Amino acid sequence: MTYLTTPTASPVGGPARVAEPGEGISLEELQLAARNHGMPLEAMHQDVTPPGLHYVLVHYDIPMLDPSDFRLEVSGCVERKLGLGADLYDLPSRTVRVTMECAGNGRAQLLPRPVSQPWLVEAVGTADWTGVPLRYILDQAVLTDDAHSVVFTGADHGVERGVEQDYQRGLTLADALDPDVLVVHSMNGQPLPPQHGFPLRLIVPGWYGMAQVKWLRAITVIDHEFDGYQNAVAYRLKQQPDDAGTPITRIEPRALLVPPGYPDFMSRHRFLHPGPVTLHGRAWSGWAPVDRVEVTTDGGATWSAATLGPEPGRYAWRGFTFGWEAGPGTTTLAARAYDGSGRAQPEQAGWNRGGFTNNSAQTVEVTVLDA
Amino acid sequence: MTYLTTPTASPVGGPARVAEPGEGISLEELQLAARNHGMPLEAMHQDVTPPGLHYVLVHYDIPMLDPSDFRLEVSGCVERKLGLGADLYDLPSRTVRVTMECAGNGRAQLLPRPVSQPWLVEAVGTADWTGVPLRYILDQAVLTDDAHSVVFTGADHGVERGVEQDYQRGLTLADALDPDVLVVHSMNGQPLPPQHGFPLRLIVPGWYGMAQVKWLRAITVIDHEFDGYQNAVAYRLKQQPDDAGTPITRIEPRALLVPPGYPDFMSRHRFLHPGPVTLHGRAWSGWAPVDRVEVTTDGGATWSAATLGPEPGRYAWRGFTFGWEAGPGTTTLAARAYDGSGRAQPEQAGWNRGGFTNNSAQTVEVTVLDA
Repeated sequence: MTYLTTPTASPVGGPARVAEPGEGISLEELQLAARNHGMPLEAMHQDVTPPGLHYVLVHYDIPMLDPSDFRLEVSGCVERKLGLGADLYDLPSRTVRVTMECAGNGRAQLLPRPVSQPWLVEAVGTADWTGVPLRYILDQAVLTDDAHSVVFTGADHGVERGVEQDYQRGLTLADALDPDVLVVHSMNGQPLPPQHGFPLRLIVPGWYGMAQVKWLRAITVIDHEFDGYQNAVAYRLKQQPDDAGTPITRIEPRALLVPPGYPDFMSRHRFLHPGPVTLHGRAWSGWAPVDRVEVTTDGGATWSAATLGPEPGRYAWRGFTFGWEAGPGTTTLAARAYDGSGRAQPEQAGWNRGGFTNNSAQTVEVTVLDA
Repeated sequence: MTYLTTPTASPVGGPARVAEPGEGISLEELQLAARNHGMPLEAMHQDVTPPGLHYVLVHYDIPMLDPSDFRLEVSGCVERKLGLGADLYDLPSRTVRVTMECAGNGRAQLLPRPVSQPWLVEAVGTADWTGVPLRYILDQAVLTDDAHSVVFTGADHGVERGVEQDYQRGLTLADALDPDVLVVHSMNGQPLPPQHGFPLRLIVPGWYGMAQVKWLRAITVIDHEFDGYQNAVAYRLKQQPDDAGTPITRIEPRALLVPPGYPDFMSRHRFLHPGPVTLHGRAWSGWAPVDRVEVTTDGGATWSAATLGPEPGRYAWRGFTFGWEAGPGTTTLAARAYDGSGRAQPEQAGWNRGGFTNNSAQTVEVTVLDA
């Protein structure tokens, strides 16, 4: 591997591990869960998720950056190096509505449980991201003939499995030149909040969150495939620690229901009154538009098609509703999504060592009260 | 107990319990940790905490309310009932900077661990809250002579330990008439975000978060002490389940350090380069202004006074700094706060069954690298 920064710290975090059977969430996992947060599912009532409800995952610390002396450096296999500051706001910009999901969403529901940020199903959100197409910036810099990949470096710095690093991800040139890939300065019409990458971040629509580099300080065009930690080691599907694994890219299809009724504080079990209920949810896929959602209200014995809402933008979740005549008793609700690429959300996804891309169908336990 | 709403659900959440020795965080606790979130401590570099970094605790679901048909009802022991909608924005308003902390902050560090929202130390934040003094509203309604307490009812609804309820808290008239108690419509100059109580919430400066009723829909003046669940059962210091306990009110003194250097992703252990380091932190107390902060860089063997920042408003945290000549090796940093009421933050606070008001000094493990 080649790193653009020099490792200096001694290793502290041990190798990735998998929890023992029956092992509760550890203090280390809880430390991550206290910093990072999911999206309370009732936020799916809104098309766009406000900051504070949109999920957040930060590998190291949130850099608190002063925009007045912040410059985005563009260099490497380019004819003209760039240093973009406030002038970036004058470049042509676009707004794209994007549903973003953490690649580790669903991790804590796998058995055995890979030990890392312990997401259940809430690591998702949808926002309107405004920025300058990366392609426009690379055109200004003029790629040289040997350009092969683009490396994005954040201002966030830390140690992971013994490797000191700035957070970095690479994209092949083909992926980087997609006109929907943006260098973003605004979220939902406001400057980026600190935890979402202020002042600048990358948005790669349709990809899991690991590609959406925050606090973007450098774009480096290289003449080979990027083999830094986050591409070559971390975000790969592996069965064994020494597998090379396959890289994680686009978001697998998933549907989530807004849990209906009202909750018990501690168990989050739901209560409803009997009668007609309209279930609401959202479904998305990074591979192709969602074209079918099915819902079960009897714990998976029968599934029926939900009513899809209006077609959203290409990369935003699609609303769905399902009419249910709720009769007294306790049951399990679930939903599953299908997309135009032929991908179907499974009731139980396969296991992998990093706990990634677990799009097993969400289940919602509800008790319908007596009339 | 008297409830202003009628319980209808059967109990599901069992009685409060305490974790067994060595028991990891349970799925139930994790569900809460995935919804609610603390403040990443690096946010203390800013005087005011933006939404999304400020801590959030929501007992039930976040109500998604339409302000156009939302009205705050004022009734009970008043001569004139009020129904306040958008006209509330025309009433005289004030802005107060308030550090707010969850009464359960520190719970997951107690041994044995009370099972509930598993906070470490991050359940805090500071915001500028703008709204109408409650006293002004009560003056408009004209209290009758039998007025004794004021009950605040939120639009959030759920079940807790078998009791179905709207979230409700009461204040005695003396506490409610404090001119700093506000019915708030704005946070940091913007309309309240949904998770902070949009469109209206109560702010009781200096008190723990349980008093800061969100989605405030009713203010009911009653002629007796309020004995609803959140006052009489939930937020009390108890040693045994059947203790009457003592009510939780104002925030105990606490100091927190911004962890210096950079973290290991999984362990959050910190690394620094050797040499002079300025440690930064914030300290607060709901009882009286903080007038001293002490810091240790040798694991508690010696403590020295930190340099206090400018005096903030009465209810906001106070910044502090501490100069440290960091030499190679691993050590533990900590800070503790003292306030003008004579209260001192302990290295180890006493235990209670609900896991409340645990202001034991935070510890930060750091490794200073070789030069």
